[in-house]
Amino acid sequence: MSDGSLTYRTSGVDRGAVAAALDAVQERIRGTFTTHVLGDIGHFAGLFRLSGFRDPVLVSSIDGVGTKVVLARQAGRMDVVGRDAITHGVNDVAVLGAVPLFALDYVAASQLDPADLAAVVSGMAAACREEGAALLGGETSQMPGVYTDAGLDVVACVIGAAERAALCDGSTIRPGDAVIGLASNGLHTNGYTLVRAVMRRCGWTLPAVFPDLGGTLADALLRPHRSYRRALQALAGTGWLRGAAHITGGGLPGNLVRILPPARRARVDTTAWPVPPIFTILARGGRIARDEMFATFNMGVGLAVVVPRDRAGLAVDICGANGADGWIIGEIAPGERGVELL
Amino acid sequence: MSDGSLTYRTSGVDRGAVAAALDAVQERIRGTFTTHVLGDIGHFAGLFRLSGFRDPVLVSSIDGVGTKVVLARQAGRMDVVGRDAITHGVNDVAVLGAVPLFALDYVAASQLDPADLAAVVSGMAAACREEGAALLGGETSQMPGVYTDAGLDVVACVIGAAERAALCDGSTIRPGDAVIGLASNGLHTNGYTLVRAVMRRCGWTLPAVFPDLGGTLADALLRPHRSYRRALQALAGTGWLRGAAHITGGGLPGNLVRILPPARRARVDTTAWPVPPIFTILARGGRIARDEMFATFNMGVGLAVVVPRDRAGLAVDICGANGADGWIIGEIAPGERGVELL
Repeated sequence: MSDGSLTYRTSGVDRGAVAAALDAVQERIRGTFTTHVLGDIGHFAGLFRLSGFRDPVLVSSIDGVGTKVVLARQAGRMDVVGRDAITHGVNDVAVLGAVPLFALDYVAASQLDPADLAAVVSGMAAACREEGAALLGGETSQMPGVYTDAGLDVVACVIGAAERAALCDGSTIRPGDAVIGLASNGLHTNGYTLVRAVMRRCGWTLPAVFPDLGGTLADALLRPHRSYRRALQALAGTGWLRGAAHITGGGLPGNLVRILPPARRARVDTTAWPVPPIFTILARGGRIARDEMFATFNMGVGLAVVVPRDRAGLAVDICGANGADGWIIGEIAPGERGVELL
Repeated sequence: MSDGSLTYRTSGVDRGAVAAALDAVQERIRGTFTTHVLGDIGHFAGLFRLSGFRDPVLVSSIDGVGTKVVLARQAGRMDVVGRDAITHGVNDVAVLGAVPLFALDYVAASQLDPADLAAVVSGMAAACREEGAALLGGETSQMPGVYTDAGLDVVACVIGAAERAALCDGSTIRPGDAVIGLASNGLHTNGYTLVRAVMRRCGWTLPAVFPDLGGTLADALLRPHRSYRRALQALAGTGWLRGAAHITGGGLPGNLVRILPPARRARVDTTAWPVPPIFTILARGGRIARDEMFATFNMGVGLAVVVPRDRAGLAVDICGANGADGWIIGEIAPGERGVELL
């Protein structure tokens, strides 16, 4: 089509201000376009030319940022949840051995604040550029009566691809393998409904300073979800990677189990890494038991990978060299399929 | 992975009831799986093996069903909005010449009613099966404080593919071509915020019977979005299809313009098809001017296609034989790019 407009669409009421906000960030969206994007056509859907794969498998994830958006809005850091939506999806496709190709997003509210929307989309575009993914299109929707005045939802769909033979599914995991935990930088995108309940209970506000945190609650709670793509790609290149789990809702027990073959259990030594202070503060303030903490939060481990025991030290080094510090946090044992926290 | 669980995930509070509702519809989701789905692995993302294309272009759309969900919830017809989310996306990729491959969905509310969720996902699964698309995965999220008690959002991302050479972008449209309108079966998925305002103003409720409608307002307002995939594929097979526009938010003027080349205008004779009674009733009740009606609703034309003038009659027949009745509603003329309603 001739006017080269993007597939970004707005629906619902009062479209003018929202359309203007999207116009303002259009160059940032275009800045994510890889050579695969057929940007000159495609008003109704985004077009991505897939090439370079012999036996491609498309690897796709959709996810929202959850109630972190409520705190982000209070703190005026909406770019963070834009980043979160992309990075969450990138990690989800990367653990299976795929590279992200493009993302589509959905942003909705009762009434969208143009500045909020611009910040969200800018955050998504920045994350996409870092990940080499095109922000191919999206939808913004204003839906009176569906969202609360404070409410806003940010959803992203990330599509990646892998050679079929290079998919990493955990099926080769065997007893004796090592579990490596890669450091998170905070809560990432999970547990915020519980966080808000603790904040209410304790009377904490976002600007509150906690000495243990070395800063405000806002700083600790509103860090963007970390990307592990580079570390995963580097590990995949070694041929040692037997499985990788993105630690999101459900924590280590709920996510590491997903990649275990039958009759294999993971034994995780919870003293093997330093749990970041934000989790200790939340547990104390909310009087939350250890098991609930581990089932809700990542507790400092944003991604877990499984490699042969004799490669574990080197694998930690390789991750560190690719932006993700890690620790050997456990091992694979025979036994009932599950994750045991020691 | 061994337990064969789907990539369906739940996040947020009170996951038990929602997980049970998803378990109950799991077989319906599995029923959409084509042979391309690598269903035995992939907990973190959905896996779809792409084959059969020489030079594939991925064609992707994301969209929500908007505030139609509020009326659907009142009427207890949540399966309809599940269908809508899929069919809307299928039409968006089909107008560009692509076949749908798979869909991912996102359903969120303050607290998800398990029966509502099961109905939504069942509707999506049924539509996916009809379209030959796999319902590859999804996310359900409960977000207290973000959604109102009545609010719920249903979003679907549809990924299709086309041979690059078979993409249909409107660039070959030329003066003298005919515009064919294909019948909608009602509002599809657009204009519901205005509908609800008219209903409030007029004191209309969903069970109200209107003689002109031959039934209740609920029946007229809650028909599922119609799919035009079969008609579009049949037309594409003839080689006559020069462009196709999905008539959604923005109506005929806002959508038909998207496929016009520079210096080409579409002249549409608005008396060329019977506007369904629901639109007349809404215009009268809401005292809505014709231009606003046409800029908000599809007015009975859910999709417009452009074909050479001398093929128009046959094209209408072909569409009719593929489930989509149509009329010749206009022509392409030289002049300022735009859509003229006569």
